[in-house]
Amino acid sequence: MDRSFTDLWWRLRRKTPVVHHITNLVTARASADVALAVGASPIMAHALQEVADVVAFADALVLNIGTPTPHLVEAMVAAGQAANRKGIPVLLDPVGAGATPLRTEACRTLADTVRLCAIKGNASEIETLATGHGQGRGVDAGQVASSIPAAAALLAERHSCTVIATGKVDVATDGKRSFACANGHELMSRITGGGCMASTVIAAFLALGEDPLESSLAALSGFEIAAERAAAASSGPGTFQTGLLDELARLPDDSWEQAVRLSEQ
Amino acid sequence: MDRSFTDLWWRLRRKTPVVHHITNLVTARASADVALAVGASPIMAHALQEVADVVAFADALVLNIGTPTPHLVEAMVAAGQAANRKGIPVLLDPVGAGATPLRTEACRTLADTVRLCAIKGNASEIETLATGHGQGRGVDAGQVASSIPAAAALLAERHSCTVIATGKVDVATDGKRSFACANGHELMSRITGGGCMASTVIAAFLALGEDPLESSLAALSGFEIAAERAAAASSGPGTFQTGLLDELARLPDDSWEQAVRLSEQ
Amino acid sequence: MDRSFTDLWWRLRRKTPVVHHITNLVTARASADVALAVGASPIMAHALQEVADVVAFADALVLNIGTPTPHLVEAMVAAGQAANRKGIPVLLDPVGAGATPLRTEACRTLADTVRLCAIKGNASEIETLATGHGQGRGVDAGQVASSIPAAAALLAERHSCTVIATGKVDVATDGKRSFACANGHELMSRITGGGCMASTVIAAFLALGEDPLESSLAALSGFEIAAERAAAASSGPGTFQTGLLDELARLPDDSWEQAVRLSEQ
Repeated sequence: MDRSFTDLWWRLRRKTPVVHHITNLVTARASADVALAVGASPIMAHALQEVADVVAFADALVLNIGTPTPHLVEAMVAAGQAANRKGIPVLLDPVGAGATPLRTEACRTLADTVRLCAIKGNASEIETLATGHGQGRGVDAGQVASSIPAAAALLAERHSCTVIATGKVDVATDGKRSFACANGHELMSRITGGGCMASTVIAAFLALGEDPLESSLAALSGFEIAAERAAAASSGPGTFQTGLLDELARLPDDSWEQAVRLSEQ
Repeated sequence: MDRSFTDLWWRLRRKTPVVHHITNLVTARASADVALAVGASPIMAHALQEVADVVAFADALVLNIGTPTPHLVEAMVAAGQAANRKGIPVLLDPVGAGATPLRTEACRTLADTVRLCAIKGNASEIETLATGHGQGRGVDAGQVASSIPAAAALLAERHSCTVIATGKVDVATDGKRSFACANGHELMSRITGGGCMASTVIAAFLALGEDPLESSLAALSGFEIAAERAAAASSGPGTFQTGLLDELARLPDDSWEQAVRLSEQ
Repeated sequence: MDRSFTDLWWRLRRKTPVVHHITNLVTARASADVALAVGASPIMAHALQEVADVVAFADALVLNIGTPTPHLVEAMVAAGQAANRKGIPVLLDPVGAGATPLRTEACRTLADTVRLCAIKGNASEIETLATGHGQGRGVDAGQVASSIPAAAALLAERHSCTVIATGKVDVATDGKRSFACANGHELMSRITGGGCMASTVIAAFLALGEDPLESSLAALSGFEIAAERAAAASSGPGTFQTGLLDELARLPDDSWEQAVRLSEQ
């Protein structure tokens, strides 16, 4: 790693990047909440008539297909292409890819028409995108094949981007280097939008303009360590959600980086 | 009752049914949160292009007209009919029925074209559906006629389904047997989406494939006892919301079933 | 002031006004939550087919352009005109005015076709509406010109309405009298929808039918004092959000009005 993760977290807080989201109606607020907690400035805007105007003052773009419609995908393409022209990073969160043709097709369209900086999905979604056939049952990951690191690397090479496949152990790769990230807590799967929140945090870090893989790892590690801390102090999924925002707002502190559990594969 | 409620709660946790929601944009996350808290797997999807594909891997379907549009009702009909073909239960939450013609008409359309397993509304909504004229002022129940049990039974018989009318005392009936459920807490009416959350929990239990009335009573009793516990430990509606999720995640425990306050009418 | 703020808060709790929102998909629930916490009855409805029917039983209308679309603006015009005919107050929250032409145009359309009782925005949004050119970068206020009180007064006179410009110190004016409100806490800018929530609370007070400027000041002062109290007891943005609802639900109490920091300008 060229930079310490703590340094990246401080740079994020100084920059307060604007992160434009075109996202689903379930977790829009959750994403905005974590963006604010880590020091970014979220804006949600999905009308075709304004997405390019919003990209014009944004520092990163999140495309999240959690509740897709053809209109929304059309707006995502327009926003993604505007982001490409401007040169800001685009992150795709392929929620439910493999679960329905609409979602799988939306991902294909976006990957074909927009240059992606990063793709962040659960193992099932990443496998679907890499292999063309998934096994998802909706937004939760199903049984995960042992081939996830291979699928992630394949996808990363195909799109020349960083791929993050979340799960009990997360995989992050840019097709050249691969890392396993063992932080996190199982309560994460008991709240709504844990994956969407991770995407928001990663996109905020991508806005720094540093190496995307390192930025993604700094983002994901911090997010999951905040989750571990929140889980330790929580009494269930309600207090966990609340505590997660509090813990994210405390990062970086003196001790957090010692808790990072990353290994190069 | 053929089965203990505790047994049903355990079966829910083992099955982790997928509950497909076509719902409003205000409480979508709240419903997803409670689904996860009780051990179900929520998916929100409303595009006409994919609702049938989502039903294909769902175990129950919630149709909630909290923020209705003609497009949304069209998607609900398609999803409901797909659910009927597949044989999974459909629950209608007629939010605001009686308050506007759009909502009242939407309920009529859904009841006419989809075979409903359960209808869960507040007293005013149930009365509107049963009698054709309500007295609602939006999503809060107005003054409740003493004829609610009769209205619920009428509606249950007409549609051969289970009807749950919530209020200070809830009424649940399948047209043959009727129960009054006296659990719950008035803080429930001080948070957004209490009724929507109840619908989600009931739909998760309907997915077990057991008797719908018993399943609804097990769901509603547990939900409202969790609310009582959360209220006892809360300092207001904010901590109540948070605590409600924590308490739902703890069910079933050794003592909860002793708090059930049900009486056959 | 003709009435004590405490008296207005009590009147709000007795009246439980119905506040119809046509709002964004990010903060709809947050607005509903605060409406319930202060004793109002929120209803969210945006379909063109029903907005006038909802206005028919509403006591105030909030038009919030946080995630605008042309369809939504069309529904806002219809609802606003129905509210004008009925004589209930309409509040405009011009989220992101100046950030994109769609938003700036939406505000112009609404101001031209609907008689507004109040406009509540951050300093950047108010300046945009007053001067026709803003400096916003999305929904956060940018650097604020020292001319905000003048811009607010200009806008208030032009539309014969009350204007509230929020910031470190808020400005409220009806074009004749102007007040600075120094309550609030910086954590407010670290949670999603702080401004949307303030709009909801103000609209609930406008529903009382008293002087709009006084009502707005009573609403805003109470909301921001609740925020101060919540901040004092919080550990970060998560517990702050939760605590804010608890504190709002406690108002008015014996001591809150002593914390009001208002000065006539």
